[in-house]
Amino acid sequence: MRTEVCEMFGIEFPLFAFSHCRDVVAAVTNAGGLGVLGAVAYTPERLEEELRWIDDHVGGRPYGVDVLVPAKIDESAARAGRGEGGLDTMLAAVPQEHWAFLFALFEKYGVPLPDFEKAKKANSKGGTQVTTEGASALIDVSLAHPIRLIASALGTPPPLMVDKAKAAGVPVAALVGTAEHARRQVAAGVDLIVAQGGEAGGHTGEISTMVLVPEVVDEVAPLPVLAAGGIATGRQMAAAMALGAAGVWCGSVWLTTEEAETPPPVKEKMLAATSRDTVRSRSRTGKPARQLESAWTREWEGPASPGPLGMPLQMIIAEGAMRQINKVAETGNPGARELANYFVGQCVGQMNAVKPARQVVYDMVQEFADAVDRLNTITG
Amino acid sequence: MRTEVCEMFGIEFPLFAFSHCRDVVAAVTNAGGLGVLGAVAYTPERLEEELRWIDDHVGGRPYGVDVLVPAKIDESAARAGRGEGGLDTMLAAVPQEHWAFLFALFEKYGVPLPDFEKAKKANSKGGTQVTTEGASALIDVSLAHPIRLIASALGTPPPLMVDKAKAAGVPVAALVGTAEHARRQVAAGVDLIVAQGGEAGGHTGEISTMVLVPEVVDEVAPLPVLAAGGIATGRQMAAAMALGAAGVWCGSVWLTTEEAETPPPVKEKMLAATSRDTVRSRSRTGKPARQLESAWTREWEGPASPGPLGMPLQMIIAEGAMRQINKVAETGNPGARELANYFVGQCVGQMNAVKPARQVVYDMVQEFADAVDRLNTITG
Repeated sequence: MRTEVCEMFGIEFPLFAFSHCRDVVAAVTNAGGLGVLGAVAYTPERLEEELRWIDDHVGGRPYGVDVLVPAKIDESAARAGRGEGGLDTMLAAVPQEHWAFLFALFEKYGVPLPDFEKAKKANSKGGTQVTTEGASALIDVSLAHPIRLIASALGTPPPLMVDKAKAAGVPVAALVGTAEHARRQVAAGVDLIVAQGGEAGGHTGEISTMVLVPEVVDEVAPLPVLAAGGIATGRQMAAAMALGAAGVWCGSVWLTTEEAETPPPVKEKMLAATSRDTVRSRSRTGKPARQLESAWTREWEGPASPGPLGMPLQMIIAEGAMRQINKVAETGNPGARELANYFVGQCVGQMNAVKPARQVVYDMVQEFADAVDRLNTITG
Repeated sequence: MRTEVCEMFGIEFPLFAFSHCRDVVAAVTNAGGLGVLGAVAYTPERLEEELRWIDDHVGGRPYGVDVLVPAKIDESAARAGRGEGGLDTMLAAVPQEHWAFLFALFEKYGVPLPDFEKAKKANSKGGTQVTTEGASALIDVSLAHPIRLIASALGTPPPLMVDKAKAAGVPVAALVGTAEHARRQVAAGVDLIVAQGGEAGGHTGEISTMVLVPEVVDEVAPLPVLAAGGIATGRQMAAAMALGAAGVWCGSVWLTTEEAETPPPVKEKMLAATSRDTVRSRSRTGKPARQLESAWTREWEGPASPGPLGMPLQMIIAEGAMRQINKVAETGNPGARELANYFVGQCVGQMNAVKPARQVVYDMVQEFADAVDRLNTITG
């Protein structure tokens, strides 16, 4: 395929794969797309390992890294995280009421409590990475590798990130959910906009991909735009590019690939889910994020809930709890299976078979060509 | 253009225009698409007049009618409507609390109350048409005209509608928001499915057009599918057809055309609105319907609200109130302007200029061709 982003990144297909799993990143890059590693869950040390592994497996082909630099986080929690106390201080900022609700939830669903002191420490890692300091360390690690793209998954990338990336000659991408945000990203110096519709998994706004993409394309022209949200097939890729996108950014579709490290009970749920089985909820990160509907989302959004906390505190609670829930769910515990969930978009309804990631790429490219052929038949 | 639905209906472009305004219906039909008159607001007598006018203005070209036959309505209200008391009995079913909230709303926003006894009667017409009897009378009037399509905007068309239409040789279309609903519509004998994404104006589900259309296409093949929701430009039309749709069904885009009878204050709001300015709310009909966000939606969804009633009672309250609000808003009353709203999809953000309806058709067709050209450049 020939598009501006194919030339910009030296790739065959303008298909960007966001994944937390290095195997998916490498597989998509090797298949002619561009894999982007979601780094938020990693410590700098772990990220260093992952990127070294990717370098060893892509033979110099282009890949990228995605960090989460929230424009607005719970500042008191962030300050606590920056202080001497570190994680402990941040954990202390979680109200007792929320721990109590969480413990009651475990009891209600018959899930044994983890060693919570240990778990709290392990959990808190997800939370600290979304502070400015945490993200900054991940950026430094990333730029020391031959990455070809650095992306900000949430909010305008801070000058620090843009400056460091530009100095390293690495283009910066940013995800946006409105044309207004796109305008701000361009002003911040971003090179590539990812317009993400509300049907997407993870943090997302409410405007659909069909409406958002042409708005953002018109807003930021001549800057290239990738479309995200609801794209898991070649027909959807063709649709996105008919809307004016220069390529697509897919996240959900990799979660049921052979390579994905998605916890087995969650993978099963995704394979069985229809497009109706997702919900936009604050219960995992503190910000609205689309995910599988499960007992977890229902309980946190329900009448007995104290309400999800902000980011990053809710993330601290949720990530640790989910680690235990997934572990217990794998043993067949029915309550844990009810609670288990993960971020995924509405296209989960089309994710019905486990395939290798490279096969997903090839199928999308083939179906894209078929869709264009069909359109040509219509115009005659 | 050449698609299955172009042949099926003898039209040049597979572009269906849903509008409550006969001028839009005739203009789109005359421009080579297929206009569909939304009949729900009409009495049988008024519908007869409208269809006669359309017959006189389309020179035998194809057009259709859309009725609203809800699968589930407030049965006690419907029974009241069917009884001797008619409208009065139905009106008596509206709780005092809701009238009180409505009166307080008028006072808060400085909008003079209409003659409410008179208004209640006038208003109630919208409500009675959504009973089975009401819809049935509209179907009979419609089938006595040379219509080429009859559509059910909400829920599975009852056997009565399908049987009458088939006897008259008129294809039946039905709007769906999930693949499961599409399956039921096919079983009910529908000839054409309109897959409507959650970004659409009016009654709508939550699955986006990008995700829904391919699901429905695969579910009902070889039956043709029209895509609806978020489609106001040729790029979006091309995207919808890349997804596998045989054509598109547009509603919102006509509301700011020259021909549209949209109340001027609402038209102004629509021209100024961005794609963020809509909300899915039960406050106008009792069922979730996307519309302009306004003081009306905020107040009914707010903490002081008794909560919207079901359909058709909420419709009775809302339609009469809105008639007064629009009338007063035209005089410049600021409170009335804050309250004014109407059903519209997220594509309202792209509706920024008043154009003749036929120009909208021509622009979409031209932009569709451009989008296909661009896709061909990509595939090489």
